[in-house]
Amino acid sequence: MTHTTQRVEITEVGMRDGFQMEQAIIPTRTKVEIGRALIAAGLSRIEATSFVSPRAVPQLSDATEVIEELKGHGARLAALVPNLRGAERAAAAGADEMVVFVSASETHNRLNINSSVIDSLAKVGEIAMLARSAGTELCGAVATSFGCPFEGDISPDAVTRVVESYASAGVHHVTLGDTTGMATPPLVDRLCRVLLKRFPEVTFSLHFHNTRGLGLVNVRAGLEAGVNHYESSIGGLGGCPFATGATGNICTEDLVYMMDETGITTGIDLEAISDVAHRLEAVLGRTLPGQLMKAGPRLKLHQVDETRIATG
Amino acid sequence: MTHTTQRVEITEVGMRDGFQMEQAIIPTRTKVEIGRALIAAGLSRIEATSFVSPRAVPQLSDATEVIEELKGHGARLAALVPNLRGAERAAAAGADEMVVFVSASETHNRLNINSSVIDSLAKVGEIAMLARSAGTELCGAVATSFGCPFEGDISPDAVTRVVESYASAGVHHVTLGDTTGMATPPLVDRLCRVLLKRFPEVTFSLHFHNTRGLGLVNVRAGLEAGVNHYESSIGGLGGCPFATGATGNICTEDLVYMMDETGITTGIDLEAISDVAHRLEAVLGRTLPGQLMKAGPRLKLHQVDETRIATG
Repeated sequence: MTHTTQRVEITEVGMRDGFQMEQAIIPTRTKVEIGRALIAAGLSRIEATSFVSPRAVPQLSDATEVIEELKGHGARLAALVPNLRGAERAAAAGADEMVVFVSASETHNRLNINSSVIDSLAKVGEIAMLARSAGTELCGAVATSFGCPFEGDISPDAVTRVVESYASAGVHHVTLGDTTGMATPPLVDRLCRVLLKRFPEVTFSLHFHNTRGLGLVNVRAGLEAGVNHYESSIGGLGGCPFATGATGNICTEDLVYMMDETGITTGIDLEAISDVAHRLEAVLGRTLPGQLMKAGPRLKLHQVDETRIATG
Repeated sequence: MTHTTQRVEITEVGMRDGFQMEQAIIPTRTKVEIGRALIAAGLSRIEATSFVSPRAVPQLSDATEVIEELKGHGARLAALVPNLRGAERAAAAGADEMVVFVSASETHNRLNINSSVIDSLAKVGEIAMLARSAGTELCGAVATSFGCPFEGDISPDAVTRVVESYASAGVHHVTLGDTTGMATPPLVDRLCRVLLKRFPEVTFSLHFHNTRGLGLVNVRAGLEAGVNHYESSIGGLGGCPFATGATGNICTEDLVYMMDETGITTGIDLEAISDVAHRLEAVLGRTLPGQLMKAGPRLKLHQVDETRIATG
């Protein structure tokens, strides 16, 4: 097993990809506390919210306040922007980065944002101009990069088309979204190698969901293909709208633990983020799917209970 | 990513490692139905029970009936035997294989079976004689091969010592148990390479727990090191006595899915074992940690709901 990198960057996406799926609306103050604790634990890039319509997604209606309250605490703050209006709000709030998103799948894009892929990409140009004049970095996300729940397999060409359009609009960082957990090691390997070769000026991050249990296995495949930036969610917060009970994003603590144990630096304190994950469980009043938070790191040893020996 | 094998064998251990941890005692008839369904789904080796003291582990007090009822259905039936008495019962019941187990960790062995490692290994010789005269194959398991919850790191030498003793007793197949989920890819790689080189006459299987989220990642590491036999549990049944809420064995369906998607043959029907996992959830009245059973294989597509498009 060889890795081409000794350091990876991790973007925390739980505050966006997780919170948007919660039934309850989490108080802004709680979100800010969680966000600051994540930054204090060493997360240097946080996708903190999405500037979607507050009517459509009331869970994230405090996008402006969340960005404002997390500013200046030491992390780059990214926010999803679904359209020009969202981009204006993100820029006004002072987000460091705005992330546009388009699906590689025509069907998924239509169902997700009621627009064809080509129309969505056309609008990226306008957002890019706005971002440039506001001095906000523009990033791009490609949803369903590794498969679409309606169309099935997605060709590398379909992803390339979206990345090409992003690159023309001046985007330097692209996230490949495994929206419903359809990625597998061979698919990760194939797509990453195609894109890294084709777009040497673009950096890529991989956004895996653990829907079918392969999340961390896919990270290993991504590392081997040369990608050194991953997106994950504290506690494994989030879910899958297409599969009741299935997990969503890969879990930040589990990812950091894997990196720690394989000699890859993340700059993130495992104990500190595990504490945040536990705090989040208390806030939400339910168990999160993260594994490491329950068991602790492997060398957190147990005391021998001598009474157990006596009784056999 | 290169693999040295195109076919792996999977031993189903849920009926032993899972059922022994259940609070409720599952009716023998139900166990037999589950076992037969597992065999029908293509599992060719099943660790079906453990011949422990019925008083100590009432959950498995029907070990004899379970073996007898599953005989002749097409799978090799293995059973754990903690001592000579258990070995006699396993042989009398007609188990195809009996599995002795000793910890690589002195402390864990003492707490688990109230015996030193050296005393435990001494008893293996007696069991080996019994197995030989009964015509039952003897296998060995090494608990805490990748770390001990009390002692921490376990040296390859400690594991080698146990395997050496097994090999002298005529054991040809050894399972390396990751008893509390402490394995990591570098540890798997190191230990497997040491043992495969040292014991060319022994075949090894790896028994991982997903306690810290690295179960399937460790399987990939094992494949790369040249091991082509894994143990897993239907639905991810089981748990970890040292971490409340943590998962136990890696999940059979998730493992088979990963193999299917990486071009490795298992002989197991993914849909059929997912059905067994769902049946088991109904029997136990709770959700199991398996992922694939919730989401289905990646190309099990969803129908487009056109009403969703109309409303945006």
